[in-house]
Amino acid sequence: MHEELLERENKSAELIVRSLDPLNAEPPLDLLRRSHITANRLFFVRNHAPVPQIDPRSYRLHVNGLVRRELQLSLDELRREFPIRTIVATLQCAGNRRQELMRFKPIPDEIEWHAGAIGTAEWRGVSLRDVLRAAEVLDEAQHVAFLGLDRVRKKDLEFGFGGSIPLEKALSPEVILAFEMNGEPLPPAHGFPLRVVVPGYIGARSVKWLGQITLQKTPSENYFQARAYKIFAPHVTAETADWDRGLTLGELPISSVICSPQDGSEVEAGPLSIKGYALSSGGRSIERVEVSLDGGESWTIAELEPERGRWAWRFWEATLVVDRGEREIVARAWDSAANTQPEEARRIWNFKGYVNNAWHRIWVKVK
Amino acid sequence: MHEELLERENKSAELIVRSLDPLNAEPPLDLLRRSHITANRLFFVRNHAPVPQIDPRSYRLHVNGLVRRELQLSLDELRREFPIRTIVATLQCAGNRRQELMRFKPIPDEIEWHAGAIGTAEWRGVSLRDVLRAAEVLDEAQHVAFLGLDRVRKKDLEFGFGGSIPLEKALSPEVILAFEMNGEPLPPAHGFPLRVVVPGYIGARSVKWLGQITLQKTPSENYFQARAYKIFAPHVTAETADWDRGLTLGELPISSVICSPQDGSEVEAGPLSIKGYALSSGGRSIERVEVSLDGGESWTIAELEPERGRWAWRFWEATLVVDRGEREIVARAWDSAANTQPEEARRIWNFKGYVNNAWHRIWVKVK
Repeated sequence: MHEELLERENKSAELIVRSLDPLNAEPPLDLLRRSHITANRLFFVRNHAPVPQIDPRSYRLHVNGLVRRELQLSLDELRREFPIRTIVATLQCAGNRRQELMRFKPIPDEIEWHAGAIGTAEWRGVSLRDVLRAAEVLDEAQHVAFLGLDRVRKKDLEFGFGGSIPLEKALSPEVILAFEMNGEPLPPAHGFPLRVVVPGYIGARSVKWLGQITLQKTPSENYFQARAYKIFAPHVTAETADWDRGLTLGELPISSVICSPQDGSEVEAGPLSIKGYALSSGGRSIERVEVSLDGGESWTIAELEPERGRWAWRFWEATLVVDRGEREIVARAWDSAANTQPEEARRIWNFKGYVNNAWHRIWVKVK
Repeated sequence: MHEELLERENKSAELIVRSLDPLNAEPPLDLLRRSHITANRLFFVRNHAPVPQIDPRSYRLHVNGLVRRELQLSLDELRREFPIRTIVATLQCAGNRRQELMRFKPIPDEIEWHAGAIGTAEWRGVSLRDVLRAAEVLDEAQHVAFLGLDRVRKKDLEFGFGGSIPLEKALSPEVILAFEMNGEPLPPAHGFPLRVVVPGYIGARSVKWLGQITLQKTPSENYFQARAYKIFAPHVTAETADWDRGLTLGELPISSVICSPQDGSEVEAGPLSIKGYALSSGGRSIERVEVSLDGGESWTIAELEPERGRWAWRFWEATLVVDRGEREIVARAWDSAANTQPEEARRIWNFKGYVNNAWHRIWVKVK
């Protein structure tokens, strides 16, 4: 059943399926860590509705709202009228690493992501900035809202997945309207025929099956901008939340994750190679990753792989000598703004389970 | 003695002097918190050498290195040839809050700053970007180095205080060559007749008594860029530090500080108003400040004063009911990239004592 669905979406059978309808799945961490570019078949899937079937011939991208010229662009027009750009960018679900928060206190009705709801691809398409210039954005515009052609159901409503980003970000050269992913046409599960890719922001802003771009004064009022993807203090609950006071997620905080060895695995005593990924956002670079075997009392500096682009994660590796017994391994990263990760997940617990970036901790049995 | 020197530099006698020669001083936190704009007389002073006496008539700013046109600009030419700009920006010393790190483990030969090595002013001058355009920067240039006209002595050497920023930041509209501070000519202790103001970066990059701007391929090799203002892991010492592997400070991490009541003060039982400042960097906004009376188990959300500019700190206030006894009050902030502060200062201790942004903790005696 799982296998069939994964196969139909051209996904690896090795993915861990978190839900079937809609499909949500993530790769095991050791597979994820093998390649700086995540193969399309291994790339995590985060969907809120069934994958829509869109005919590329009749497809049109609508650009409207606070613009001088409304646009309706076919895929051919997009390719013909704007320069083609590529960017290597990591996308991360805001709920990545929710599983660790759930261990501390339950988070009902949310997907129990481990740390694989993240991936890096080369995206090819046109610059959102170029399209916005063609539409001649009016001075009053401050936010750029995206609307997908999928149909999400919430209570009695049915609507496209949406969200917005500030105009300033939308005009940055890294934001792409992508029709290719790693040299292939965008797979259906990843937004065929067109999605926006907003590097450095939570994955939810990289709206798939993009149907409409609206320039407006205020942020999107779509459910996924106005109600979901906000964080609250640890004591706030679904019942007490004042949604207007939640922190709207945009850029992601710094994080690092141990991919290998895997949590709960058995390893041999002696030198142990520890490998992982680290990610900051907003274009900030990963400057250092540290690994500890004593809960943060002392740290070993990991080797960083060369930077492969400002908007991509950074792989790291450290070799530490481990003795027999149950051992905790901890990792934390620092970025170019000298931000580092919080020590304890419970200090940043929030009832939606977003952006857990606490020190990553795994346990291994050393034989 | 202190009073005379402070008076000579046109500084308030209420400043806490940390060293006399060179002058280093900070305001008490309750005074600092009174006004969103810090009066020049109260603004912290961080000098590495005596204040140089510069004749504004013969003063010239030299722009050289990887440019098509070298420039030598008098103050009149700067004012006449470029548009005048103003910006409200907070400057913070990278060593602010070092005192808290020193309580955990000694940091010899560094200034014992409390949390007052920070201030906000309205800076008036010309845009660095405009000056660089006039100099016609060559494609190979990647860093912009600044050199001051002060004379710092280190061992047998004497040289100007210097540092550099990436070209991309230098071309951002917020970076100003300032000749005025809060409507007055730049005071001598703050860089008369000209300093650069690099909002969102550690104070050390806002070089005072600016004599030279050099476009180059690599970062400045000035002592204060290549050797100081780097951070290391907690276990690294002055003896074991590999300076090439230190994290070069640029943007500052998110921080928040309780200014009132002051640490160690006595307060009355009942509702207590707690006031402070919070600061992120890189243009990220402060989204939330939380205050706790139980060491972080539960938090009260503080009220934020309206944002007064993208590059300025944000004031906050919370009223909590305190019972009799010795009480710890803790504050932490969150920024628009969902970054928050580390819980414990000892986890980020570094042997130079830079960028302590741990949860701010004060103790009060409640009567």
